[in-house]
Amino acid sequence: MRMTHLFTKTQKEPPKESESANARLLVQAGFVDQLMAGVYTYLPLGLKVLQRIQSIVREEMDAIGGQEILMPALLPAEPWKTTGRWKDPGPEVMFQFKGLGKRDVGLGWTHEEIVTPLVQKFAKSYKDFPVAVYQMQDKFRNELRAKSGILRGREFNMKDLYSFHTSVEDMEAYYDKVLEAYKRVFERCGIVAIPTEASGGAFSKVSHEFQTPTESGEDTIFVNKAGDYAWNKEMFPKMKDGDDAPDGSGPVKETKAIEVGNIFKLKNRFTDAFKFTFVDEKGKKQPVYMGCYGIGPSRVMGTIVEASHDERGMIWPKSVAPMPVQLVSLQSKDKTMQEKIENKSEALYEDFKKLGVEVLWDNRDMSIGEKLADADLIGLPLRLVVSEKTLKEDSVEWKLRAEKEMQLVKLQDVLEEVVTFVRE
Amino acid sequence: MRMTHLFTKTQKEPPKESESANARLLVQAGFVDQLMAGVYTYLPLGLKVLQRIQSIVREEMDAIGGQEILMPALLPAEPWKTTGRWKDPGPEVMFQFKGLGKRDVGLGWTHEEIVTPLVQKFAKSYKDFPVAVYQMQDKFRNELRAKSGILRGREFNMKDLYSFHTSVEDMEAYYDKVLEAYKRVFERCGIVAIPTEASGGAFSKVSHEFQTPTESGEDTIFVNKAGDYAWNKEMFPKMKDGDDAPDGSGPVKETKAIEVGNIFKLKNRFTDAFKFTFVDEKGKKQPVYMGCYGIGPSRVMGTIVEASHDERGMIWPKSVAPMPVQLVSLQSKDKTMQEKIENKSEALYEDFKKLGVEVLWDNRDMSIGEKLADADLIGLPLRLVVSEKTLKEDSVEWKLRAEKEMQLVKLQDVLEEVVTFVRE
Repeated sequence: MRMTHLFTKTQKEPPKESESANARLLVQAGFVDQLMAGVYTYLPLGLKVLQRIQSIVREEMDAIGGQEILMPALLPAEPWKTTGRWKDPGPEVMFQFKGLGKRDVGLGWTHEEIVTPLVQKFAKSYKDFPVAVYQMQDKFRNELRAKSGILRGREFNMKDLYSFHTSVEDMEAYYDKVLEAYKRVFERCGIVAIPTEASGGAFSKVSHEFQTPTESGEDTIFVNKAGDYAWNKEMFPKMKDGDDAPDGSGPVKETKAIEVGNIFKLKNRFTDAFKFTFVDEKGKKQPVYMGCYGIGPSRVMGTIVEASHDERGMIWPKSVAPMPVQLVSLQSKDKTMQEKIENKSEALYEDFKKLGVEVLWDNRDMSIGEKLADADLIGLPLRLVVSEKTLKEDSVEWKLRAEKEMQLVKLQDVLEEVVTFVRE
Repeated sequence: MRMTHLFTKTQKEPPKESESANARLLVQAGFVDQLMAGVYTYLPLGLKVLQRIQSIVREEMDAIGGQEILMPALLPAEPWKTTGRWKDPGPEVMFQFKGLGKRDVGLGWTHEEIVTPLVQKFAKSYKDFPVAVYQMQDKFRNELRAKSGILRGREFNMKDLYSFHTSVEDMEAYYDKVLEAYKRVFERCGIVAIPTEASGGAFSKVSHEFQTPTESGEDTIFVNKAGDYAWNKEMFPKMKDGDDAPDGSGPVKETKAIEVGNIFKLKNRFTDAFKFTFVDEKGKKQPVYMGCYGIGPSRVMGTIVEASHDERGMIWPKSVAPMPVQLVSLQSKDKTMQEKIENKSEALYEDFKKLGVEVLWDNRDMSIGEKLADADLIGLPLRLVVSEKTLKEDSVEWKLRAEKEMQLVKLQDVLEEVVTFVRE
């Protein structure tokens, strides 16, 4: 994409109400725009990141047998009254209003009340189980004080997976499978996310959150020595940094963290409410067991920014970057040289296009300093610079955003090297 | 996908409240599920159709320079008060309620009030124009009487494109470009959609709708002799079938039709309200001109069903079918033969998978009649049947859903022929 075509612009100064790094950097770089507190528009570069995260999540959900569906956001009150959640937590988290004449309706903040009767319509015999369905959808929460940029929004993107089983054992086995799939999702998104024991709420003793350690996190967790398991302070309010871990694996380390996913064993909390049973081999009705599993792609996007930026801007992992490469053509005072820079850049840009490599080409008429500052702010993984200096050596400058070092790569080799970089 | 894995099931009888062919067939085949009037869940097969339509729309919008963004559905009242649409049409079409403490908010049914101030933030000089942005999003309408299945919903999927220009001429030229892109979208989706002159509403004398002729349509249009242009009865209330066309091209034909898209020249109706101007070459402020263009992918999906079905079920065009092929293994009373059918079918299914051909494999333990009836109901473009009879001739039965004829294709040729069919 040519930057002259991109309708957004970077801002020299961070926005005034920059409550958190992700809001400040994403707004400043033109990835998102705040419409009201906790409600954001995804602009072209930001939407590409969100879509890449969604693709990774979708692949991993499909790989564990999840079937993608799309439930509505506009929901009738009745099933929520059946489970009691129309009143508790009710309007505290759910937008509720009268619509369609005088009918009570609300906006979806989670979908147990919708998915349970839906699956119940089709799954009746033991032969129909297990069932795992998921959706990728914008959800709504009536947060009185939305903050932390896109980390905790009033409207946010959510992947919610629900599974239904004929036994507790089968539910537990699938829960473990999801836990492994979640590890792969976060690894592919380039963030550390530690499985963390947390309260199971009303449903079960323990659930797991995936927590990404960063200073800006709202949660406090205690990480084990190996760094691959943690305990939420909510469950262990008296634990301190350096204490022995609950599993006896040695001293824990206290850290702030952001919750990027969670998995729950709901058991029969919702299936019982809807009298959802199955008929077993002997023709007898038996209870159905359920699990639910959430990842918020928009929150993952904000977390990546929190965990991966420096004083100059964002540093996108290649797997979720809007594009892998930013091509920067620097200005020259020499008119002939300027033309040569432009032509060479355009030729490279067209070659990359033919090779299927997505490139953000900074072809704007702007100072060298502004262009390099914008490249750092936007933070694509690889920056190629074409300038008077590099052309004199038949080269382009090659710099990874995550590293300080820069080098020259011969023009004749650059296509091949970039393709290798993108595919590796 | 194996049908034993698919959690949905077809229903032998159409649903009771089958107000229209699309609702009846889509629900009966397990493509969608009605949550309340005008509000549907997209089930695995239905969601695939919706996503395929969205991909076609996305490609054509990108091809005319549209930049994809995603605006929120939860909207503040203020910009709607600025244009007057908070009150008129107001709650008649918009869900409005108090949220976030006592703040007035509403759900998006269109986004002029959001996109205009958004683009205004970035586009200031004549050099920044034209700008074309679009989104693919669920929208909401407070319809008192939702009907016609997924054709007119309270929650529905929408692609809305908005363009901004420095002159009326540039706006007109882009309007024509969108008109051509829309023609390509509908052609690729396999439906006839005739550009139809309609009222421009408050904005301009004329707008264009894209109308698909079908008996179940809510609109009445008069189609020209060539069948490539029409006039909406709303604009020509006195016109009758056989009258001479307004452009003198000969007698028109009256028909019912469904509106699947529309394009409007908004001019400065919204840009003026937000004082959105640009600075021209001479440093002078000038008005910005705007167009807006809508296609509802969920409505297109319903329209395809209305326009393309028979008494046995749906007939999906290859471009939007959930999968191109349904592989049906028929039962045999002979146990050895039954095993042979299953093994041969599984081998074919795995081969197709390797070739990247998506196949819905009916591997269920069910009668021949039920399986063939379901294949007709679901309506994938190509049906392959493996049975005792076909295996005796080392063949599979090959039948296109849209045609009556069936033929035998040798097992050794079937992979190649299917790949050719899918790619052509």
